[in-house]
Amino acid sequence: MAQVIQPISPAAVDELAALRLELADTSTVVLAEELPRMDLAEQALRFRLLPKDRALAVFEELDTVHQQELIDGLKTDTVRELLDSMEADDRAKLFDEMPAKVATRFQSQLNAADRRITAQLLGYEPESAGRIMTPDYVSLRASMSAAAAIERIRHLRERPRNIDVLPVTDGHRKLLGTVTLADLVSADPDLPVSDLIADEHYQVSTDTDQEEAARLIQEANLIALSVVDHEDRLVGLITWDDAMEILEAEDTEDAARAGAAEPLERPYLSAGVFMLARKRAVWLLILAVSASLTVTVLNYYETYLANVTVLAVFISLLTGTGGNSGSQASVTIIRAMAVGEVRFSDAFRITWRESRVGFLLGAMLAVVGGPVVGFVYGWDIGLIIAVTLLVICTWSTFVGSLLPLLAKKVGIDPALVSAPMVSTLCDATGLLIYFSVAALVLGPALTG
Amino acid sequence: MAQVIQPISPAAVDELAALRLELADTSTVVLAEELPRMDLAEQALRFRLLPKDRALAVFEELDTVHQQELIDGLKTDTVRELLDSMEADDRAKLFDEMPAKVATRFQSQLNAADRRITAQLLGYEPESAGRIMTPDYVSLRASMSAAAAIERIRHLRERPRNIDVLPVTDGHRKLLGTVTLADLVSADPDLPVSDLIADEHYQVSTDTDQEEAARLIQEANLIALSVVDHEDRLVGLITWDDAMEILEAEDTEDAARAGAAEPLERPYLSAGVFMLARKRAVWLLILAVSASLTVTVLNYYETYLANVTVLAVFISLLTGTGGNSGSQASVTIIRAMAVGEVRFSDAFRITWRESRVGFLLGAMLAVVGGPVVGFVYGWDIGLIIAVTLLVICTWSTFVGSLLPLLAKKVGIDPALVSAPMVSTLCDATGLLIYFSVAALVLGPALTG
Repeated sequence: MAQVIQPISPAAVDELAALRLELADTSTVVLAEELPRMDLAEQALRFRLLPKDRALAVFEELDTVHQQELIDGLKTDTVRELLDSMEADDRAKLFDEMPAKVATRFQSQLNAADRRITAQLLGYEPESAGRIMTPDYVSLRASMSAAAAIERIRHLRERPRNIDVLPVTDGHRKLLGTVTLADLVSADPDLPVSDLIADEHYQVSTDTDQEEAARLIQEANLIALSVVDHEDRLVGLITWDDAMEILEAEDTEDAARAGAAEPLERPYLSAGVFMLARKRAVWLLILAVSASLTVTVLNYYETYLANVTVLAVFISLLTGTGGNSGSQASVTIIRAMAVGEVRFSDAFRITWRESRVGFLLGAMLAVVGGPVVGFVYGWDIGLIIAVTLLVICTWSTFVGSLLPLLAKKVGIDPALVSAPMVSTLCDATGLLIYFSVAALVLGPALTG
Repeated sequence: MAQVIQPISPAAVDELAALRLELADTSTVVLAEELPRMDLAEQALRFRLLPKDRALAVFEELDTVHQQELIDGLKTDTVRELLDSMEADDRAKLFDEMPAKVATRFQSQLNAADRRITAQLLGYEPESAGRIMTPDYVSLRASMSAAAAIERIRHLRERPRNIDVLPVTDGHRKLLGTVTLADLVSADPDLPVSDLIADEHYQVSTDTDQEEAARLIQEANLIALSVVDHEDRLVGLITWDDAMEILEAEDTEDAARAGAAEPLERPYLSAGVFMLARKRAVWLLILAVSASLTVTVLNYYETYLANVTVLAVFISLLTGTGGNSGSQASVTIIRAMAVGEVRFSDAFRITWRESRVGFLLGAMLAVVGGPVVGFVYGWDIGLIIAVTLLVICTWSTFVGSLLPLLAKKVGIDPALVSAPMVSTLCDATGLLIYFSVAALVLGPALTG
């Protein structure tokens, strides 16, 4: 008998029930980690089986790239519901990275208030505080009593996600400070809110850089930071969890740059082979062109190499070691700058310290390496290698510490001074040092 | 007339008043940044002029190393007061890094309760959740009403710093879940606390690794995470601000390792030249010894170099480029692993992707570099360089992506696979590739 409509088999019903139970037992964090690793149909199936509030929690935890992917697998109604319930700043971020046409379509489906808020957030500069703030907060009047403030919060029709910190404004939306919910609850109910305002007040403007705002949140341990417009009127809050996300993204950028790769700005596995290659090609090319300086230097000393072939044997060891000690210095200084421990005004102190560190390290290598090389290749070669190691390490460590400081001074991100860049720059000078030392020690036997 | 007691001059009084005003205008964050840059007397002077609560806030914001420094400049009474008011976990951390004798002396001056708490925290393993949690929290009973819970909080004699998240326990201190203060305030006052427990529950044990706990706080956006003992009884809370600090410290470690330097574990400027050198010496030596493999390879091919000296000219360019493409791959994979985007089970997929990326990059360099070298040094040399660049880039990118995965597999921190290490390891193999290609192209002219 021909079946037109396929009934769901009892086995499939059991399977769905089992899957639902499994999902109920899996935490949001784990789900957000596992979903993007499945194919789209599997993702959508699991997503539909989740209760609404959990589905939203998982969705908000996904990376923007994975959110977009998942949206493609869901029905329009589900998507609209999701977008409606998302936090305004997360929604703006998602729209921002969608193709313009798709974003416009979804935006038109939002209710009027959400549409206005999203458009407003997208109006701020990318990577600014305005772009990442949430306009969803509860503000209090300074003249209210603590009890009245709590009543106000209790009777809100829709409570914003974050009410642990409550901005206090005057009659003209001007920000006066913030009150924590904890202080409000613990206070004498009759006390006016103005008496509970935290002594220490921090605020940023909508055009403050997002990393600066995030670092302020971290350093001052703020659960939420108020954002004001140019007339000092409150327009939003940046919450600590968004700050943590921004700082993690900035650290990911710095990590990529430390290895001379441009940041991917999306999860690794979601980037294709061509995109990966493109993110590295420019730096690799720049470095290769800089490295061709070593060709010029070696070409210049070709007669030396023809006269004493054994010198060629140590080229990689010496330039490699110089590059390594330079990299050690540069990563140390770059990180110290990133977390605010040192600044350009410390430049003299830093480079002087580092030069001495390099000298110590070079001396150590010379003492270890010189005798070994001398024993195998003759004492004159041993002497050349020992002296070269000493000078190269001192010089590379100095250069490695100076470059990030100079980058900062001229307004370039110091993280761009990568280990590969430092070693490439130290290679050519290292060779110059090597052949100069060799000429001094060997004299006419080399140069003649 | 001889003056025995020096009166404070009116000018000095004015100066102190001006300094006090200046301090009142400076934020805690800026003060905590500027103080450690002054000499001890200047630090102590400013510190004494601060109101007590601000002094505490600034002190808590300082790095442990700088806290110790400042303590040396303060009177015993001031120190005792500071230690009394510090959060228990911060105090434990400070004691932990003090010389044992000093720590014992200060510990004996604490009141009995604080002394017991400190001793308890210091009893947990270093870098464990138990070590960084605060035992200072308010827990609620599941059967209380929301109103009763709020009354309880309002009438606490000493309110803990963090009450935004409140753990809920049964009669035996067993953790049932957490309630947020926000939910408590917004709820119907008659509702029992058990109805307000968050659906999603996270907890860690006292011996969980601190980084794991901090990542959980970040990923699940928790203001505070409950810590339980082996019988599931609540013993403390880890707060989001401590989690941020831990993650920053871990990123600082990873950054240092990316450049083959051991982490300093203290602010850069507070580390001496010898300490800096010591933190780098071991790695530099290991790398130099590994680099001596290149000496062996070059030694083996010395006749090639003697026959066709021009080959020596490209050694640094080729090994440098191989090291660079390997470093690009390794930093990308290390970071993707650190933030949890990839794991060992992805190894095959990753290395296959990366090999193709390396091939693309190598092809690009070959197309650019081959003709230029061919034009200057002859077409056979151009061909050798082009083919070598292609093979070296593919190989180094493969190795650079594989090493961090292998490190993870055998239980080594993948961040130890530094850019200098990858380039050092790729140097010797790169030379093998170079001379093999040269032998193929030039034949007996090279090898004969």
